Amino acid sequence: MIPTKEEVVATYNRVKPFVHQTPVITSSLLNSLAGADLYFKCENFQKMGAFKMRGAINAIQQLSDDQKNTGVVTHSSGNFAQALSLAAKNLGVKAYIVMPSNTPQVKKDAVLGYGGIITESQPTLAAREKEANRIQSETRATFIHPSNNTDVILGQGTAAIELLQKHPDLDCILTPVGGGGLIAGTALAAHYLAEKCQVIGSEPFEADDAWRSLQTGKIETNETTNTVADGLRTNLGNINFPIINKLVAQIIRVEETEIAAAMSLIWERMKIIVEPSSAVPLAAVLKKKAFFKNKKVGIIISGGNVDLKNLPF
Amino acid sequence: MIPTKEEVVATYNRVKPFVHQTPVITSSLLNSLAGADLYFKCENFQKMGAFKMRGAINAIQQLSDDQKNTGVVTHSSGNFAQALSLAAKNLGVKAYIVMPSNTPQVKKDAVLGYGGIITESQPTLAAREKEANRIQSETRATFIHPSNNTDVILGQGTAAIELLQKHPDLDCILTPVGGGGLIAGTALAAHYLAEKCQVIGSEPFEADDAWRSLQTGKIETNETTNTVADGLRTNLGNINFPIINKLVAQIIRVEETEIAAAMSLIWERMKIIVEPSSAVPLAAVLKKKAFFKNKKVGIIISGGNVDLKNLPF
Repeated sequence: MIPTKEEVVATYNRVKPFVHQTPVITSSLLNSLAGADLYFKCENFQKMGAFKMRGAINAIQQLSDDQKNTGVVTHSSGNFAQALSLAAKNLGVKAYIVMPSNTPQVKKDAVLGYGGIITESQPTLAAREKEANRIQSETRATFIHPSNNTDVILGQGTAAIELLQKHPDLDCILTPVGGGGLIAGTALAAHYLAEKCQVIGSEPFEADDAWRSLQTGKIETNETTNTVADGLRTNLGNINFPIINKLVAQIIRVEETEIAAAMSLIWERMKIIVEPSSAVPLAAVLKKKAFFKNKKVGIIISGGNVDLKNLPF
Repeated sequence: MIPTKEEVVATYNRVKPFVHQTPVITSSLLNSLAGADLYFKCENFQKMGAFKMRGAINAIQQLSDDQKNTGVVTHSSGNFAQALSLAAKNLGVKAYIVMPSNTPQVKKDAVLGYGGIITESQPTLAAREKEANRIQSETRATFIHPSNNTDVILGQGTAAIELLQKHPDLDCILTPVGGGGLIAGTALAAHYLAEKCQVIGSEPFEADDAWRSLQTGKIETNETTNTVADGLRTNLGNINFPIINKLVAQIIRVEETEIAAAMSLIWERMKIIVEPSSAVPLAAVLKKKAFFKNKKVGIIISGGNVDLKNLPF
């Protein structure tokens, strides 16, 4: 069930020409605040502004020619809707995106700008799935799940591969945990390609399904999703959870005030725009300073798509 | 009067170990909006968050040992106060900073954080100069002007030297124009080290002293300073004006709404935090598309120190 080293390496070579090799940034001020050496892998500078481009590219690349001809479909109101639209456009494939009718116009415009074909649904999961099913039957498009899909997971792991190429001696890599695609892909990359690199998840107390899933050994759902980190409100899935359960060292939970403070530090000190979800790993490092002391710590900055008129600080 | 090529090159070698070699970023979306190839030299990632670090380092390096022992003094409420404080600290020199009593606490804290010794004055130019004079007589500290000082000008030019090393075939480089140090230094660098690279200034209509100075051939003062680009409200000086008058091709003026729109584009599309002054060159390029069409255009992003609670969009 768990992808092999050969699949991890093949994914990297396949995805590489279609994504930016994003920079790794350091900050001496944040290092001294944390008491550790932090290496920020800046997927906010990725095409469409988030790591999700990687998984979307890989998932479409792995389709048969017949599948490519009939297109792809997903339901998402967030970064994956934009990622699948742009990846499909860049690979010459049609993308059907089911978006809830209450999606902000700015997010619809982004999808349209990348060439996605939007269908609106009622804003419930059942309605979204029904609409996606209808499109699948009518168009024979292939459904691509935003996080619970092996090719998506493998694609997301390529950010960590690039980070480890530059810094092979990292003690650990932290990611935020939403649907589980990023952390599962990162865990595969570190497992096969690093000597001793732990992968550590971070999530809000307000959406701590992954932390509880690792406690019980089965997929738990969120009891609350009242978090500013809007990318992290989703649950793990049956494809990524076995990888996470086997390969992730621990998950650290943080408070909402800690997320806002970490986001503010990144904006003010590193001068880069990151979305709230991207600040969760730094919040975790600053919360557990004793654990991270003097370690070399990689952090995946997941994305930079944020509403500038609605900042949490 | 105008510094030589040897001085320009010697400054680069002297300053280099004490500043970040900041990255040059491109954006395919902004290129397609502009119809030109834009290369953004990101001095918002410079130490203390602005290009002013370069001039401050060079000015202190050029002091005699006796002068270094007695320290430096300036009056500034902006980036140069922070730059001189940090440069002095890094070179083991005392920095006395005269700041108007109405300076926001956050700016005082930044100077204190970099080890600057603050003296408050009444918020008039006369009071600031009087206080700086008093400190000079009492401490024998050397006065360093933020922009009208040959060593400061030469130091600011090192950003353009780095940019030209990466992209020797630029058709032009744009900078914002405030006190004139950055554009004068950039013009010297391009004059001596590039084949055919024009240097073009950009400033708000609301603070267009440099544009008018080039029209009349003498230093003009601002009639209004009602601009969001708070770093550009100052006037040129007798040391930098002859360089600007001789070596700058033209100055383009832009409206306040154009500055805010360009700033918003940089934040949303490039995912980097820049101050309003840094958006003025992009506003100029977007205003004069026919002139810049298909050209290779360097843009100095001057800094990223901005009040996140008071954005112009």
